[in-house]
Amino acid sequence: MSIDYQTMWTDLGLDLTSHDALLNVLGTAYRDIYLAQENRPETMAYFDFVMSEVHGLRIKELLDEKAAGRKIIGSYCVFVPEEMVLAANATLVGLCSGADFAMEEVEKLLPRNTCALIKSSFGFKLGKVCPYLESADMIVGENTCDGKKKAYESLRPLVDNLYVMDLPQVKSANGKALLKSEYLRFMEALQELTGVAVTTESLRSGIKTVNAKRNAIHRLSALRAADPAPISGLDALLANQVFFYDNPARFTDAVNKICDELEQRVASKSGVCPVGTPRILVSGCPQAVPNWKLPMIVENSGAIIVGEESCVGERGTRNCVDESGSTVDQLIDAIVERYFQVDCAIFTPNTDRLAHIEEMVKAYRADGVIHYGLQFCQPYLMEAIPVEKALEEKGIPCLRLETDYSMEDAGQLTTRVEAFVEQLR
Amino acid sequence: MSIDYQTMWTDLGLDLTSHDALLNVLGTAYRDIYLAQENRPETMAYFDFVMSEVHGLRIKELLDEKAAGRKIIGSYCVFVPEEMVLAANATLVGLCSGADFAMEEVEKLLPRNTCALIKSSFGFKLGKVCPYLESADMIVGENTCDGKKKAYESLRPLVDNLYVMDLPQVKSANGKALLKSEYLRFMEALQELTGVAVTTESLRSGIKTVNAKRNAIHRLSALRAADPAPISGLDALLANQVFFYDNPARFTDAVNKICDELEQRVASKSGVCPVGTPRILVSGCPQAVPNWKLPMIVENSGAIIVGEESCVGERGTRNCVDESGSTVDQLIDAIVERYFQVDCAIFTPNTDRLAHIEEMVKAYRADGVIHYGLQFCQPYLMEAIPVEKALEEKGIPCLRLETDYSMEDAGQLTTRVEAFVEQLR
Repeated sequence: MSIDYQTMWTDLGLDLTSHDALLNVLGTAYRDIYLAQENRPETMAYFDFVMSEVHGLRIKELLDEKAAGRKIIGSYCVFVPEEMVLAANATLVGLCSGADFAMEEVEKLLPRNTCALIKSSFGFKLGKVCPYLESADMIVGENTCDGKKKAYESLRPLVDNLYVMDLPQVKSANGKALLKSEYLRFMEALQELTGVAVTTESLRSGIKTVNAKRNAIHRLSALRAADPAPISGLDALLANQVFFYDNPARFTDAVNKICDELEQRVASKSGVCPVGTPRILVSGCPQAVPNWKLPMIVENSGAIIVGEESCVGERGTRNCVDESGSTVDQLIDAIVERYFQVDCAIFTPNTDRLAHIEEMVKAYRADGVIHYGLQFCQPYLMEAIPVEKALEEKGIPCLRLETDYSMEDAGQLTTRVEAFVEQLR
Repeated sequence: MSIDYQTMWTDLGLDLTSHDALLNVLGTAYRDIYLAQENRPETMAYFDFVMSEVHGLRIKELLDEKAAGRKIIGSYCVFVPEEMVLAANATLVGLCSGADFAMEEVEKLLPRNTCALIKSSFGFKLGKVCPYLESADMIVGENTCDGKKKAYESLRPLVDNLYVMDLPQVKSANGKALLKSEYLRFMEALQELTGVAVTTESLRSGIKTVNAKRNAIHRLSALRAADPAPISGLDALLANQVFFYDNPARFTDAVNKICDELEQRVASKSGVCPVGTPRILVSGCPQAVPNWKLPMIVENSGAIIVGEESCVGERGTRNCVDESGSTVDQLIDAIVERYFQVDCAIFTPNTDRLAHIEEMVKAYRADGVIHYGLQFCQPYLMEAIPVEKALEEKGIPCLRLETDYSMEDAGQLTTRVEAFVEQLR
């Protein structure tokens, strides 16, 4: 950190000792995993700065926004429409859930057999180490999986102003109607919180801002189709992770600058690894900051990750919202249309996801798929078995992994990943 | 079995060797657990007969019904409205899911970390040992928990005619509208299958039949409030289990005859155990036939179970459907009204359930609650922690157990249950 933020963190109610420990671990991990990479794009320096200031400058910015009367909304899921949040003069931030923290306290509130993502969100709250959570004026939960749905009941007494959004389980007419109804209810709650009425102009502006962010990420993704890959899976994942935290316009600019550099790399046939390096698509559960375990293992095993079929990745960012509507209602319909296409495993059936995995394999010229499942994440672990079967039937090698945030199984995972990579050569 | 049913089972496609093995285990378990009990009501002889013929005479009856043009509907959940099934000239049966079978095959289709109930439903299919499943003309799944919701996707290729019902997750106006819409869609599917149109008369008749069955069980439950308890928890659970399989009218008669006998017992202050025996309410996951593990352990530990807050128990049977509607639509509204009150843990929030547990503790004069959680059942395991906390705060002792269908942990469970019972004395 370039400035002393101790006072800011104290004012937010963080536990400074624990928080220092977290930042130390995070800094060391970032240095060992990210900065140790070779041939990184120079423009990734932006994200190095972002990460060095992830609990510093970005939090100060949010607090400055709050001081100027803007509200901060924290969320745990890609179903929370940032377009509406922006239109109501608020800022959306993803909440930390990529590392184990305060597990002993967490397991007093949640069953041990709960996925690492959910436990982490509780750990950051109970351990008082997430300045995003503590800055938020409203925290938005959503009825996606059973684990999150029921966990929000136990989170409610721990936080101020938890808002829970219901979600459909089937992509039926009823399901779409429920999503629209819930988005309308959410927009009302936002307007009540901010005192700002959403207008056609503000909503269209929000849509444009988020579309621009998505388009920049789409551009980055498309460049990863090149062989040699111009950017590592680790760096691309980081961009997808920061997607949830950063100022949207600045993020869009930064990603487009990286794309400019990557275009030059592609034109000159240079990249982060030799031509012919085994190319892997990662599919499955989200990998939230600072969960870099899988890409670190994969890319240290002589392979390169060329895409993430994940909420923190293309499942979360694909498809833009139609900007052409001329009323708030038309724009909301367009928002519903876009989010209703998200092929989360909470939907049944969820055949679009399999089609998208195959599409990504083709588009990014992947040699194989690693299905990344968080232990106890029933929706993705349940889907993993038919997904693996369908891919294998089409001649696409698939490795199904189940893990958590601890490093205890790193050796075992490495062995399995190395054997899989060998099979792809 | 009193008759040779081999031909019938062969025709149904059962694996006779595996099926014989299952029946042997079931017969031995029933003898050791049920018939070994002391002071059983004489009228329980009916259920002894039912159990001895559970894969025999009852299946023959269903096949005779089919031969006469009636359809058989199999279900896995208390949200499937039997009233409608009866009104469409069909018979509803619960499908076997209370024992481990063909686990090696099951774990090729489902993650190992799936609850025993779901695994069992697959095991009975894959092992070809469930004559109910093989007799069914339609199998009804439902989007309750993630585990079941996603498992039906993998069950679909294994069975003919799987119908999946969507369910709400929130008890909102939208949620109720979804339930009604899904019940209407289900009624249409039933009518198409049977070729029989549901009328006001047939629907009211179906409602009356199921209400009568529920009222008989309510009468049985109420009698368990007496000290000494006139019937064991094991026997009462069996009645609740057979609720899902038997001919409804005959079941109602049999339960009412048991109640007549229990009333005499209560009047004469006689029962199955001494006055003052520690009284336990079991709350949590369903216990399907032949899952008698917990009541066996509890009642062998010197306590008596006086109620089951469970789908196979009072959560499933409480509340009747208003019979007074004069149109099909009014009667359907009454059905929706009744089922929408089911306080399944898939709903969020689900505070009614906690209120009902406390109500049952009072009504049945329980000294403590055992929360029965199936391993990997996220909804109930998640609720168990706040339920235990709330009960303890009200001075109601609570023991939170997590188990599966294997007997490997029987010793450990016995130790914990004995210690809990000792605490209640």
